[in-house]
Amino acid sequence: CHHHALWCGWSVCVYGGKVLVFPVDGSHWVNMKVIVEELHSRGHQVSVVRGSDSWYIKETSPFYTSVTVDIGSGFDEDFITEFVTQLLEIQREGQSAWTRLKLELETAQRAAEMHDKICKMLEMMFENKELIQSLHNAKYDLVLTDPAMPSGVILAHYLHLPLVLNVRWTTHGEGHCAIAPSPLSYVPLTGTELSDKMNFLERVLNVLVFAFSEYQISQYVLPSYAGLMKKYFSPDVDFLSLFQAADLWLMRVDFVFEFPRPTMPNVVYMGGFQCKPAKPLPQHLEEFVQSSGEHGVIIMSLGTLIAELPHDLANEIAAAFAKLPQKVIWRYKGSRPSTLGSNTLLVDWMPQSDLLGHPKTKLFVAHGGTNGVQEAIYHGVPILGLPLIFDQRDNLFRIGVRGAGKIIDFFTMNEDIFFQAIQEVLNEPSYRMNMQRLSRLHRDQPIKPIDNALFWIEFVMRHKGAAHLRTESYRMPWYSYHSVDVMLVLAGVVLIILSTFAALIKCLCSACLKRKSKRD
Amino acid sequence: CHHHALWCGWSVCVYGGKVLVFPVDGSHWVNMKVIVEELHSRGHQVSVVRGSDSWYIKETSPFYTSVTVDIGSGFDEDFITEFVTQLLEIQREGQSAWTRLKLELETAQRAAEMHDKICKMLEMMFENKELIQSLHNAKYDLVLTDPAMPSGVILAHYLHLPLVLNVRWTTHGEGHCAIAPSPLSYVPLTGTELSDKMNFLERVLNVLVFAFSEYQISQYVLPSYAGLMKKYFSPDVDFLSLFQAADLWLMRVDFVFEFPRPTMPNVVYMGGFQCKPAKPLPQHLEEFVQSSGEHGVIIMSLGTLIAELPHDLANEIAAAFAKLPQKVIWRYKGSRPSTLGSNTLLVDWMPQSDLLGHPKTKLFVAHGGTNGVQEAIYHGVPILGLPLIFDQRDNLFRIGVRGAGKIIDFFTMNEDIFFQAIQEVLNEPSYRMNMQRLSRLHRDQPIKPIDNALFWIEFVMRHKGAAHLRTESYRMPWYSYHSVDVMLVLAGVVLIILSTFAALIKCLCSACLKRKSKRD
Repeated sequence: CHHHALWCGWSVCVYGGKVLVFPVDGSHWVNMKVIVEELHSRGHQVSVVRGSDSWYIKETSPFYTSVTVDIGSGFDEDFITEFVTQLLEIQREGQSAWTRLKLELETAQRAAEMHDKICKMLEMMFENKELIQSLHNAKYDLVLTDPAMPSGVILAHYLHLPLVLNVRWTTHGEGHCAIAPSPLSYVPLTGTELSDKMNFLERVLNVLVFAFSEYQISQYVLPSYAGLMKKYFSPDVDFLSLFQAADLWLMRVDFVFEFPRPTMPNVVYMGGFQCKPAKPLPQHLEEFVQSSGEHGVIIMSLGTLIAELPHDLANEIAAAFAKLPQKVIWRYKGSRPSTLGSNTLLVDWMPQSDLLGHPKTKLFVAHGGTNGVQEAIYHGVPILGLPLIFDQRDNLFRIGVRGAGKIIDFFTMNEDIFFQAIQEVLNEPSYRMNMQRLSRLHRDQPIKPIDNALFWIEFVMRHKGAAHLRTESYRMPWYSYHSVDVMLVLAGVVLIILSTFAALIKCLCSACLKRKSKRD
Repeated sequence: CHHHALWCGWSVCVYGGKVLVFPVDGSHWVNMKVIVEELHSRGHQVSVVRGSDSWYIKETSPFYTSVTVDIGSGFDEDFITEFVTQLLEIQREGQSAWTRLKLELETAQRAAEMHDKICKMLEMMFENKELIQSLHNAKYDLVLTDPAMPSGVILAHYLHLPLVLNVRWTTHGEGHCAIAPSPLSYVPLTGTELSDKMNFLERVLNVLVFAFSEYQISQYVLPSYAGLMKKYFSPDVDFLSLFQAADLWLMRVDFVFEFPRPTMPNVVYMGGFQCKPAKPLPQHLEEFVQSSGEHGVIIMSLGTLIAELPHDLANEIAAAFAKLPQKVIWRYKGSRPSTLGSNTLLVDWMPQSDLLGHPKTKLFVAHGGTNGVQEAIYHGVPILGLPLIFDQRDNLFRIGVRGAGKIIDFFTMNEDIFFQAIQEVLNEPSYRMNMQRLSRLHRDQPIKPIDNALFWIEFVMRHKGAAHLRTESYRMPWYSYHSVDVMLVLAGVVLIILSTFAALIKCLCSACLKRKSKRD
């Protein structure tokens, strides 16, 4: 039996499962690939569904075979970079509530376009009888998908296969919110930049954001899939319940990063599953890093989506770096800023995790994508955050609130503000101490996150699902789930009893009065 | 570093922690002892608080040192056996709703007496300055307690120590209900014998039972502790919040046994932690077991609390056993039933787990205590359940609903019914198959339950608590927790807007009418 230590000899061992992976393209694929490679290394066969114009997902790989579908995955590079540029432009206009709303609506509008594309793709897949037959014939043990897009979720149900989610977001919000009770009084929603301790006004804001996101889902998500659902599923199957029926939720967070909140038995936390001890750097980088002496190194990256910055901003950043005694490694694809100092190395790509794990690295200037934040926690490097879009602000907020990093506003920042912020995080020891405390907590687990994730994926293979860990309460209508029907009936009964009682007393009284008046 | 494999070298290793254990006496101590021995074997020092007249907890042990307090633990043998006899008498009267209510009230009344005893004991401890000083001086890393009685919980807060619970019940109900959201629509309460799938009437029953138990707590639990709380804690500290503030909840269930329900990040499931592979039997037992040939063996035990059965009942049971081709090992302390067959061995005590793990064992006739049920799941032996009191009926219900056992009513049972039931569970293969399926699921975990429990206890030692896994939402008043205040204010705002709007329209209309009438 090849899979790692079970503590008994009873289990049916899986000598090689078959997994159908339906990833989301872009940065999400970076995460999924880690699991695909791990599945491969444990002897499982992996098939990956990819769009023919896929951005990141290669057709041939030593780790998986591809199932290429003819239509785009709905998430191609042009589409997303154009969208991101647009979002950044809106944000540069200012930070008013109006801007936020405009941003949200623009995002939702774009998402709706994406959903329509996905529906078209799924319909083409379902109508391709040959493809569907071959997927049936392959006898997969399960579908592994990222529910940020619902394609894999819907396909799993169409093929009647067990479903494992590699999840932080669903199409309709944060992962937990889809299955675990999430009281709005202490579970802050994404986009609110609130913690688990809110005052009254913050709780009001949280409720309003919830109402707004429910509105968005009903307006921009559900209608896109209504036709598809009607055509391929029985009328009692509801779009959101397809997610809730998943056997396993592999969550890409843990509670070092996320605030404590209710969870469910079939949620497995694998935050930081992609993190590994640092490998030695390439020689030229190692030499550059060592040349920093006692001052150490700062590394900066704004992720994959931001290729280039406005000239003025890039110049401010470079000028601030130039004033520092530290060496700086800056991942930047734009043209060379004129103010760039000799201490700053511009690179197209860098071995980010290995650099973060280098003992000379003192600070990580980051946009706050989940991967980078998790790597910083793993290696214990404090963050100076420049959040741009999506969940980055909330991710960095979680670091800031633990005192392990500082956030500055990207759009109002200048050389001075940036320089002061770097100095503060470098010189105030609490930032590093707090991040190292998070790192110790994160690393102190009985089993490595990636091993835990793989164990549970194989568990679903061995037992053909994880029914006993999964509540089916999502099948109830909302008024039953929240016991509204029971409360109404009980209130009705109490009312009937009280009014009968009142009527009785009234009768008695009037009888008494009558008798009395007769007597009088 | 002596404690088991951490996957990194960063953690501060604990070379020997100090744990103050405040157990509950009786069968609860059987569980706690397993953890005490494991802590000892990993090099930790354990002190156990025990009453001077303790029933089960020995003063001297190779595994721990005792802190004996002069007053009884409030849970002595006479008190509990007398109480159990009384409960059984009430139940023999019949199974009406009235009996159930009487049973509940009797239990609550007795519990209230116990609570008063506990308060007296705690007050004597707190007033014993020498004792408290020595507990402070010992510099314990944490308090480990069973919150079925609140003594340890209160002491931990008094000493300002991190708190770990070995828990299935709190003083005020099932463990989860104290910290995890537990929607009454799919979380069946103890005593209801309902599953996680309820129809409307069952949900009504569940809500009523909830209301009744809230009433019981407010009447029979909280008042007992009001004086103590007022005397030793600040006025904003609430009795129930002492439990909710625990760092870690080591739950003595898992989701093979329990129905899926919401949980919290600081809940660690260790159901079956006490189970071990079967050791060889003593020679005389092994010979008896082998003499059963192909028919195999049935074992029967009604637990520690029921010493003796009414004569007539014991005779019916013995007569049914006598008719079987199987051999029977019956743990029974009463006088020898006259109908006892030669195939039945009466014993005072038996190595229950080793017998359940013996390949010849076909059936376990049990009262449904948690320990026995967990051992039966671990070894995959189907159960014929004779529930008597407390949670036994609900425990067995969980086995019955999975098709891994059958329940018969102890109080209306006779020879025929008992014989038929044994035959059914022995001859219908589904019972054994289902129990073996539960066993496979239970054993298929990435880490042994006892190792997981110990890891997290040591985690609390290493990090001086587990604050990041624990929500502090319990500090909110109930109306904030449930967002009632926010909803009322939002409703108010909507109302004001609507009424302003209505007033405005009214004004306009009347203005129009006036002008019109002027014109006319």
